[in-house]
Amino acid sequence: MKVGRTRYQTVWMKRGTVHLVDQNLLPYKFRIRKCRTVEETARAIENMTVRGAGAIGVAAGFGVAQGVLAVPRRATSAALLKRLRAARARIERTRPTARNLFYASGRVYEACVRASHDPAKAREAALSAAGAIAREDARAAFRIGEIGERLIRSGDTILTHCNAGWLAFSDWGTALAPVYLAHRRGKKVFVYADETRPRSQGARLTAWELSNEGVPHAVIADAAAGSLLSRGKVRLVIVGADRIAANGDTANKIGTYPLAVVARENRVPFYVAAPLSTFDETLSSGREIPIENRHGSELFDARWFRALKRSRVENPAFDVTPARYITGIITERGIVKPARAAIRRLLARARL
Amino acid sequence: MKVGRTRYQTVWMKRGTVHLVDQNLLPYKFRIRKCRTVEETARAIENMTVRGAGAIGVAAGFGVAQGVLAVPRRATSAALLKRLRAARARIERTRPTARNLFYASGRVYEACVRASHDPAKAREAALSAAGAIAREDARAAFRIGEIGERLIRSGDTILTHCNAGWLAFSDWGTALAPVYLAHRRGKKVFVYADETRPRSQGARLTAWELSNEGVPHAVIADAAAGSLLSRGKVRLVIVGADRIAANGDTANKIGTYPLAVVARENRVPFYVAAPLSTFDETLSSGREIPIENRHGSELFDARWFRALKRSRVENPAFDVTPARYITGIITERGIVKPARAAIRRLLARARL
Repeated sequence: MKVGRTRYQTVWMKRGTVHLVDQNLLPYKFRIRKCRTVEETARAIENMTVRGAGAIGVAAGFGVAQGVLAVPRRATSAALLKRLRAARARIERTRPTARNLFYASGRVYEACVRASHDPAKAREAALSAAGAIAREDARAAFRIGEIGERLIRSGDTILTHCNAGWLAFSDWGTALAPVYLAHRRGKKVFVYADETRPRSQGARLTAWELSNEGVPHAVIADAAAGSLLSRGKVRLVIVGADRIAANGDTANKIGTYPLAVVARENRVPFYVAAPLSTFDETLSSGREIPIENRHGSELFDARWFRALKRSRVENPAFDVTPARYITGIITERGIVKPARAAIRRLLARARL
Repeated sequence: MKVGRTRYQTVWMKRGTVHLVDQNLLPYKFRIRKCRTVEETARAIENMTVRGAGAIGVAAGFGVAQGVLAVPRRATSAALLKRLRAARARIERTRPTARNLFYASGRVYEACVRASHDPAKAREAALSAAGAIAREDARAAFRIGEIGERLIRSGDTILTHCNAGWLAFSDWGTALAPVYLAHRRGKKVFVYADETRPRSQGARLTAWELSNEGVPHAVIADAAAGSLLSRGKVRLVIVGADRIAANGDTANKIGTYPLAVVARENRVPFYVAAPLSTFDETLSSGREIPIENRHGSELFDARWFRALKRSRVENPAFDVTPARYITGIITERGIVKPARAAIRRLLARARL
């Protein structure tokens, strides 16, 4: 991601400190936030200073590594493992839905456990695993961009929901990576960005990214997407994913499911773009994906709650799109049909 | 509508002044706004001090009547007709979609033209037609409540979009009238109110009304409705309408169409509630309904536009739900199937 003349990643670690682009301040301010401890990194995930499936995965990996780095050099293996477990537990308590978070915390944890006979090696292993996750995340996103770009024809109008761009991964993004590559390769593209209430990631982050990249676009209210689809104004829908079950059912930002239903109703292709780290083979279907409910204050301010004392708010952060509404899932290993057997084969091949 | 101990209508006229509940201030302030001239009434419709199909219809009728009242008592017929035409044209320039507005302005206009040989009689005719529209609007809404109430079983959870309650008509409302009657008759009901971006009529007006009436409810982001429907949390959807074409296609607040598609996909009944004054027999299908595009500043403030100079906003205020997604239309003359022949018969019967 280029901001002014500087190239940034969304999340990186330097001398034990996790650096994050503060996504709560965009598009009004571009600030790097520094998290020096597991607790600070965990809070940054909770309060969505960092958000987006890939980016919170990378931050989670670094966060668990921070737990290990905090252990004194001459500590015992037992003491190290205790801190490691505590760090993983703290990081995994932050947000329940994105698979990447658990993928990353688990991977750093296991790398560290394997080296835990020697605390110095364990530190190295944690850092190296967390760093690898960040690099793989960026590489997978770029590949998703290359593979997805082939779906885009010059003149296309593409609808996206929430933000699955630069900011949602350590680099490039997923749903938007194909758009950025198509644009850079000279294809004419136009993007409709859903505002994405309540936190407005579309209006704030996707619009900011598209502006940065010079991609023509318009922001719409979430409720307006259906009208555009029914009037033939959208050629292609691409969204990200927070977790994909073994059968292809996909959890993503609240509002993705109705978009998929209406896209199918209007015969508009609906693609999910996500790296393999988003797949959760332990879940047979989307019904088992845990859905985070967030506080009503994300929708309204204190004045609203004072004026309407008897009103309450329900604020699920994600919904599940059944596989049958999804045209294909764009991964770094190719486009996969959202079906149990195809997904199993893809993941098996990737493990070879 | 009861506010504290006082019973209010949403729109009324007294000594030539149109009185409106200021809907832009709710739920924070309850204020009555007075419009003394055609221009003031037209602006109140434009800036949505008064909104809701029925309420703007009633206000439009009063507005045209104000044009006639402003004519000096000894003016010629020709002078009166000129002012009448100007008033109607000004009122009809305010908002293009709601049928009730054109129904009301046309009806007052014609009543006045018929009596225009005698300016004094013309004034009387205009006032009387405008008053009749307001009374009929309230009566129709109450009947819609009675007829729709039969669809509600105790224990039901009902989803609605935007505001089609007390505030959207001169009294009672349409989509919410059945809910209010069911609640008053002791049925247990729970309402999910879509926030309804960009102007938040659901979060501000519907929540305020339901609070006033003591009906248990929760406000949700528009994008969350699909998830609730797919999880079996909604037994019934009822929405209002701004204009209904001869074949049953229905224009209503942006976001109604995707709701209808997702409701059908989940086999949840989807009802439109609207008085006969919402039907427009001159339009063969929904494709002919004019859809208002409103300014992007409804979605974002100046700070957003400054931060994102290259972003633009598209803001259609309504969408069209094809008749095939609608279970039935609740009118003051019964529930009609959204089909050309059934609608034609209903309207013919009503004219007898």
